[in-house]
Amino acid sequence: MTRTADTWILAAQCPSLLGTVDVVTRFLKEQRCYITELNSFDDRLNERFFIRAEFRPLENDFSVEAFEESFGARAVEFDMSFELTPPNKRTKAVIMVSKADHCLNDLLYRYRTHQLPMEICAVVSNHPDLEPLAQWHGLPWHYLPVTPESREQQERQILQIIEQTDAELVILARYMQVLSANMCDVLAGRAINIHHSLLPGFKGAKPYHQAYEKGVKLVGATAHYINNDLDEGPIIAQGVETVDHAHYPEDLVAKGRDIECLTLSRAIGYHLERRVFLYSGRTVVLGH
Amino acid sequence: MTRTADTWILAAQCPSLLGTVDVVTRFLKEQRCYITELNSFDDRLNERFFIRAEFRPLENDFSVEAFEESFGARAVEFDMSFELTPPNKRTKAVIMVSKADHCLNDLLYRYRTHQLPMEICAVVSNHPDLEPLAQWHGLPWHYLPVTPESREQQERQILQIIEQTDAELVILARYMQVLSANMCDVLAGRAINIHHSLLPGFKGAKPYHQAYEKGVKLVGATAHYINNDLDEGPIIAQGVETVDHAHYPEDLVAKGRDIECLTLSRAIGYHLERRVFLYSGRTVVLGH
Amino acid sequence: MTRTADTWILAAQCPSLLGTVDVVTRFLKEQRCYITELNSFDDRLNERFFIRAEFRPLENDFSVEAFEESFGARAVEFDMSFELTPPNKRTKAVIMVSKADHCLNDLLYRYRTHQLPMEICAVVSNHPDLEPLAQWHGLPWHYLPVTPESREQQERQILQIIEQTDAELVILARYMQVLSANMCDVLAGRAINIHHSLLPGFKGAKPYHQAYEKGVKLVGATAHYINNDLDEGPIIAQGVETVDHAHYPEDLVAKGRDIECLTLSRAIGYHLERRVFLYSGRTVVLGH
Amino acid sequence: MTRTADTWILAAQCPSLLGTVDVVTRFLKEQRCYITELNSFDDRLNERFFIRAEFRPLENDFSVEAFEESFGARAVEFDMSFELTPPNKRTKAVIMVSKADHCLNDLLYRYRTHQLPMEICAVVSNHPDLEPLAQWHGLPWHYLPVTPESREQQERQILQIIEQTDAELVILARYMQVLSANMCDVLAGRAINIHHSLLPGFKGAKPYHQAYEKGVKLVGATAHYINNDLDEGPIIAQGVETVDHAHYPEDLVAKGRDIECLTLSRAIGYHLERRVFLYSGRTVVLGH
Repeated sequence: MTRTADTWILAAQCPSLLGTVDVVTRFLKEQRCYITELNSFDDRLNERFFIRAEFRPLENDFSVEAFEESFGARAVEFDMSFELTPPNKRTKAVIMVSKADHCLNDLLYRYRTHQLPMEICAVVSNHPDLEPLAQWHGLPWHYLPVTPESREQQERQILQIIEQTDAELVILARYMQVLSANMCDVLAGRAINIHHSLLPGFKGAKPYHQAYEKGVKLVGATAHYINNDLDEGPIIAQGVETVDHAHYPEDLVAKGRDIECLTLSRAIGYHLERRVFLYSGRTVVLGH
Repeated sequence: MTRTADTWILAAQCPSLLGTVDVVTRFLKEQRCYITELNSFDDRLNERFFIRAEFRPLENDFSVEAFEESFGARAVEFDMSFELTPPNKRTKAVIMVSKADHCLNDLLYRYRTHQLPMEICAVVSNHPDLEPLAQWHGLPWHYLPVTPESREQQERQILQIIEQTDAELVILARYMQVLSANMCDVLAGRAINIHHSLLPGFKGAKPYHQAYEKGVKLVGATAHYINNDLDEGPIIAQGVETVDHAHYPEDLVAKGRDIECLTLSRAIGYHLERRVFLYSGRTVVLGH
Repeated sequence: MTRTADTWILAAQCPSLLGTVDVVTRFLKEQRCYITELNSFDDRLNERFFIRAEFRPLENDFSVEAFEESFGARAVEFDMSFELTPPNKRTKAVIMVSKADHCLNDLLYRYRTHQLPMEICAVVSNHPDLEPLAQWHGLPWHYLPVTPESREQQERQILQIIEQTDAELVILARYMQVLSANMCDVLAGRAINIHHSLLPGFKGAKPYHQAYEKGVKLVGATAHYINNDLDEGPIIAQGVETVDHAHYPEDLVAKGRDIECLTLSRAIGYHLERRVFLYSGRTVVLGH
Repeated sequence: MTRTADTWILAAQCPSLLGTVDVVTRFLKEQRCYITELNSFDDRLNERFFIRAEFRPLENDFSVEAFEESFGARAVEFDMSFELTPPNKRTKAVIMVSKADHCLNDLLYRYRTHQLPMEICAVVSNHPDLEPLAQWHGLPWHYLPVTPESREQQERQILQIIEQTDAELVILARYMQVLSANMCDVLAGRAINIHHSLLPGFKGAKPYHQAYEKGVKLVGATAHYINNDLDEGPIIAQGVETVDHAHYPEDLVAKGRDIECLTLSRAIGYHLERRVFLYSGRTVVLGH
């Protein structure tokens, strides 16, 4: 699971077709790359193929450009999209928050202890409360308040930060604003949200209060890519906790915090390790 | 948790009022009953009080009638309803099934190994398939097929069986028919259903197929009292299992079976041990 | 996860060496076999490689003999052992029990509902109690009582049954006898035991009583291949349940039953689906 | 579960005797205290009784001294020890750490967000590494390095800090030193340690490495009161996580961190809410 310092990742997907595995594994063999972990899955209902390989080049002259060019030439025959990730890759990320600090605190702890291979380029918030937390970790802080009237402009500013920092990933760590359709489109497949319910149950606002009303015996959280359909994006990870009658809404909120943190950080880990494949509104998560 | 052969259970509920605990515990002391386990809960949002005591009479002349009369006289001042359950109590139950046998098989195993303190008086089904299973356990079998036209009559027959056997509990162990409003009313608070989703998510038919469509990473089951609002009855217990992209709908169905069995039998156990209190569309489950 | 009716399984292991994946996947491609699921793992501490592929031959003339011969010729260069499993394979198994019936009941239910792809050839017991259960399922029953003096002879009889039925798998479903070193040797890698603790904690007799003494808050079960070192065989699966102070030893026993059943059947499922690889006293379980 | 701002806690234990519940509940009634949650348990193997009540005084003139004096007079007849905890009680605590920061980080987050009703008086460490973390939270930091020769003196300094701060609770948040017998005695029943295994499995050093060697499929953590028998103190809480063959020792370490944090903070929460009763080397945890 931990990878040696010379381990690369190749992740690819394409339509189901004879030879999809072979085109990857034969190439790696030819390039003298030793595969340490390999997982592939063929979705027979959607006729789509997914593969993820961890490998170590046995020679010193491994070249990304040469690999991508040579492999690309073969992949194209399978209509295969692929991504090659180097050992030292730290994905650039922007985190968005509001007032709740538990997810941010958890992410920043994992960040500073190198548990998540990312580089946090900015923390953006529509409230000023969490600035000290970001600052203690030495992270650029952007306070961008928002009203219904200013939303369009505020989102433009956020997108500017994402562009300027070259961020590939946006993490909505309890950012309590609905994003515009345009924002969702621009961030499709690279923005992960944590919703505090077992979606699709309890969509929308105050899910723990809804859960209390129903008298549920389990509460949970869902990490998903955002899309235009609020709280309906492709699910990456879900977590759950048992509760009982003695949990008032505020107890559910408190109990939910731990599971939100764990679920969000797990989903981010999957994403950063290139385990998550997105297609037809769902995800394949390989080798977790 | 296991009780000695001389342990009684007293379960009661009433509006929140000073002295609700004392009226129970003082009486038990006066009657020279030793309390081995006691749990009470006060729902401050609904202003309702619940208490459950397990106790051993220290004298040999313990009399149910005397207890109920004396205690009843005090309970009435608190508008308290109560139920006294003797050590050897085996609640009479009728099980309703259709074609799926996993919950029935599980219940009958627990039944014949004395894990559930009930006496199964009849197994009723709208399909003939599970007769051998009931017969091997020596249980009366009633095959009552049903069509939309015959439903009223079929339900009358079922209610007759329930009456004639003096059954206090009805278990819908994957009985795949919607019950009429009248049937639900008659069985309110004493009929437990197992639904194969984490209600209120995926209500209605084919919940595992719905779950597959959504690409969820968790599936579950919900045991609840039936009421008129289909799949919305008060929840007693819920269970959950992790799944992933490789689970096709039929895999979710298979994976769900174990959790359905466990969740249903757990809910029945709570009910039989008088742990479940029903009020305002929700349950309190004490001391599980 | 469910496989189509034409899906084969290839499982193999060998020392770590460049080309281990390629030798498998290239061959499958050449044979026009479509890989629907593939998992490989390289244990860098033990320098050993494991691979498991599910595949569908695209042509009608697929021949086991030809496949094994041709692939064998290549595998030998990698010192690779492999096993090819056809779609309709039902592994022959013998189940050994004593008096406890929960695991047997669970296995027979899964057996008769085709949840485990095996053919039970015999049920062997050192006690007469569970004969009716075996008989109801139409299974050959062998009552072989045992004393310290007769153990050698009794084990010979058991081995005879295993041989005569061509059983490939032996399941110790709470068989409460210690096997001889010889018996363990003969059955190495093909006999699965369920121990009612989270090994290596609470080895030996009465683990739930040991757990009670320690006041643990979790109990569990371990399914493992048997070996000469009692309760120390390679672990295949483990399950766990929360408990508390109110659980007396007999409550732990009761609570443990469900987790024993689930853990044993899960381990057997992994074994039957050729997911388990045994080496150096440990297991790799691919793609579960 | 959350308590209103006027809720007191009464916790008591004594030998099993008729009237143990009544002596508590009758007194509360007489004092016009409304019980919102009540749990009692009688350990019939050890013949010991435990009770915990949450209650709200209905009158404004509630006096701790009067309560303790009056109730004490009755409790003495039952040889009952008890503790009365006021609504705003924040237990004074000292945290001991070494180099690992995950438990400290987690505790300090819960501390500053008021999830744990305690007042941290000091953070003590035998290494300088975690000073910035303590400082950012404005907590007194004591760097007390230790060698085998200086242990006696260092422990004296620690005990001095505990005394001077009036700390009632000591938390060993991955403090990697064995305490002396004397230190254990002095801190008996008020020092909580987190061990990174499912005790009594994998006692001693490097439990995750031991777990890897055994090829376990589950790892866990145990929070317990310290006593003279290293890693054998009374267990308060245990947590668990699934792992597989792909987890190298360092992966188990990483995976274990989350469960260590959760298990330790849960145990501390139980202790602070006066749910934990210690006797005969084991614990009763009421109403969690």
